[in-house]
Amino acid sequence: MSRMDAVLARVDAGMAETEKRLDDWLRIASISAQPDHAADCRKAAAFCRDELAELGFTARVADTPGLPVTIAHHPGPGGNAPHLLYYGHYDVQPPDPLELWNSPPFEPTVVEGKLGRRVVARGAVDDKGQMAMWLAAFRAWHAETGTLPCKVSVLIEGEEEVGSAHLADFIRAHRDELKADIVVISDTNMWDIDTPAIAVSLRGMLNLQIDLKASSRDLHSGLYGGSALNPINALATVLGQVRDGDGRIQIPGFYDGIRETPAAQLEQWKSLGFSEQRFLGDLGLSVPTGETGRTALERIWARPTADINGIWGGYQGVGAKTVIAAEAGAKISFRLVPGQDPAKILTAFKQFVKERVPADAKLEFTVFGQSPGIEIATDSRFMREAIAALSDEYGKQAAMIGSGGSIPVVETFQRELGLDSLLMGFGLEDDQVHSPNEKFELRCLHQGARSHARLLGRLGA
Amino acid sequence: MSRMDAVLARVDAGMAETEKRLDDWLRIASISAQPDHAADCRKAAAFCRDELAELGFTARVADTPGLPVTIAHHPGPGGNAPHLLYYGHYDVQPPDPLELWNSPPFEPTVVEGKLGRRVVARGAVDDKGQMAMWLAAFRAWHAETGTLPCKVSVLIEGEEEVGSAHLADFIRAHRDELKADIVVISDTNMWDIDTPAIAVSLRGMLNLQIDLKASSRDLHSGLYGGSALNPINALATVLGQVRDGDGRIQIPGFYDGIRETPAAQLEQWKSLGFSEQRFLGDLGLSVPTGETGRTALERIWARPTADINGIWGGYQGVGAKTVIAAEAGAKISFRLVPGQDPAKILTAFKQFVKERVPADAKLEFTVFGQSPGIEIATDSRFMREAIAALSDEYGKQAAMIGSGGSIPVVETFQRELGLDSLLMGFGLEDDQVHSPNEKFELRCLHQGARSHARLLGRLGA
Repeated sequence: MSRMDAVLARVDAGMAETEKRLDDWLRIASISAQPDHAADCRKAAAFCRDELAELGFTARVADTPGLPVTIAHHPGPGGNAPHLLYYGHYDVQPPDPLELWNSPPFEPTVVEGKLGRRVVARGAVDDKGQMAMWLAAFRAWHAETGTLPCKVSVLIEGEEEVGSAHLADFIRAHRDELKADIVVISDTNMWDIDTPAIAVSLRGMLNLQIDLKASSRDLHSGLYGGSALNPINALATVLGQVRDGDGRIQIPGFYDGIRETPAAQLEQWKSLGFSEQRFLGDLGLSVPTGETGRTALERIWARPTADINGIWGGYQGVGAKTVIAAEAGAKISFRLVPGQDPAKILTAFKQFVKERVPADAKLEFTVFGQSPGIEIATDSRFMREAIAALSDEYGKQAAMIGSGGSIPVVETFQRELGLDSLLMGFGLEDDQVHSPNEKFELRCLHQGARSHARLLGRLGA
Repeated sequence: MSRMDAVLARVDAGMAETEKRLDDWLRIASISAQPDHAADCRKAAAFCRDELAELGFTARVADTPGLPVTIAHHPGPGGNAPHLLYYGHYDVQPPDPLELWNSPPFEPTVVEGKLGRRVVARGAVDDKGQMAMWLAAFRAWHAETGTLPCKVSVLIEGEEEVGSAHLADFIRAHRDELKADIVVISDTNMWDIDTPAIAVSLRGMLNLQIDLKASSRDLHSGLYGGSALNPINALATVLGQVRDGDGRIQIPGFYDGIRETPAAQLEQWKSLGFSEQRFLGDLGLSVPTGETGRTALERIWARPTADINGIWGGYQGVGAKTVIAAEAGAKISFRLVPGQDPAKILTAFKQFVKERVPADAKLEFTVFGQSPGIEIATDSRFMREAIAALSDEYGKQAAMIGSGGSIPVVETFQRELGLDSLLMGFGLEDDQVHSPNEKFELRCLHQGARSHARLLGRLGA
């Protein structure tokens, strides 16, 4: 049997071990948003360092001013084999609301679903499970040939879920060490479990918190109502004006620089036969929101959004409390598309808010991250081989999709290293990313590992 | 010395005991909004029953479908002495945010303030401390004469802070037992510590919670933003439209039935020399909110409001979480003035919300309480004697004030028993009612007790 078949056989035979190693990784509660989990984050970084070291990588955990990164290098076979840089993130989103999980978020649990066995845990698909696929491919190649068919570097960060504040500086400081031919990332979705996909456009993000302080203490709404500033009313008033009735965002200049999606692209998306009714139906919803006059995939992949991710203020307990709170706050994220300038939009949004709150309101803005939307070249050798590898595995053409989610690092790699990214992801729409009961289909884990093994073989010497 | 002087001397001599009894009452965390404090509420009810029994009252704790009431009767001297019904509430507001208290909310602490000694605790002034004044007056009269100069009934409820849901039914069911000549209530403020006041108008209240449910689970804002309903955006949008830029409430029919405040009344209020700059300055604020084109006292005493008392939804933790929440909620209270119909406004508000949220939003309204604003007759014998009693004690004319706060029971007594209420309160504007570090000036406690003793003497045989 061919070398490729032998490697694939090793991937198949190694699946039990691949699942076990993933479970061990998922047990580490590497929540980057919560400082009291910093030690868990270090543990998660060391975990993949050790895994890579076993496979002949020179691997280390490197510090940043924030959470550390895992960085590793494998020489490959030498010669003119291409140099691939694999990127992923070991950090995960906070698991709350905890009460909605069917099993503890950091005790990976395999359950039977309509698509077969799936592993349920925070990070199952985003992104530990998707990294486990290429780690399994490395393991199979290493076991079969004692080396890898390409020169391979790995960079795994720990702050992706909180805006990758320190990654760009790290990449800049290690430019020579990280210089490669292409970046390979598995942090996106397939079209469906039978149809592989490569993401060729990504939305960017501007992500911030507003704190609005009013009086120096909580007040009785009877004694002060009608005179004293209510910070919750003020916050609701300004946030309520961010979008108009047609879902258009009202921040001046917000849509500047956006190119309309080419008709051909819209056509290809239409051909995918996406049903928004089903998409929403799975969530108990039926009426699409967002901009009127746009197709569903355009709204999700190619149009910007403004979502309030959290809001708080005043009394949230049982029953009534007629209080005027001293302060209120909210977390807001804008999904951005190619052409929009996050810095300009941040400035415009701050101005938008300042103009709409009473003069007395003390405003504080905390920016968690900002990155532009990006497009990826589709005519490279790497893209062609990736499409072929996926066709070999799935027996059908991969869909060229957009992704509504943000992977700011893709833009960072373009800017800092001049590298394109190959976004070959194996998540599914219903994986409950960032939600309770996040899961990863073991069939996706398996075929994703095989696809990565195929890609290495096609690109390698 | 006169009998009145002898009684006042007993009030003075009894102040240490009065303070101690108040402290014992304040130590009971009778928070009506929180079911796990139901036992504390029963304890607080029993506490005043025992105190009244000591003074020759026939006193009992009576059950309601909610928290119990304390009810007691004293025959007085017989003859044609008038029958006074004293009302108060033993329940208190939740103390949170706890971290802002300088001493534990249920460990009464006496500290030196700019007006002398004050007791700091939740309920210090609202309403245990104000009830302690008339209890002290009863004690002095009982000690001096072995009886009380008037026939006296007492009704102390435990659900005032959560809308008095069961009080009206209780009063109706005990109409004959509670029939009196006038209701006496101390739950309002003085004009300042040297100037007593009687409240002759009270704002009513409509008090409710909105829960808005959207998708069946939390969603990733990248994968679903632009298509799936965001309940926080929806809630902010509708709540942001409740008031316009001039502080006018936009609910159709909201202002129906309101009579403009008579010019003479506005004149008398102007003569009080109220400084909104100072009123707000004490809170670190400088710009009045509320309706434009109205004087400060008019906005606080005679105009309705819409305040969001609490709001919640999505991620409220440290850092960022790009989630679209499954649900969001808010607590809202409307202060109402005479002429407004709470039931009509509730219906109009529900319609206002329904018309402004996406069709997919599942709405739930929980009403905590509704009561109209009311006016009190100023030409009765009781009002005249109360004004005289206060002049005797303070050496100056009592101010006839409005009160922005709501005492729904006043309207209930009017409706169910045809009784007016004498609102003779001794709180101060800076008592931090419903806020951390709620306090009561011991000088107010003392002169308030003396004023109540004087009122009993003037009205009595």
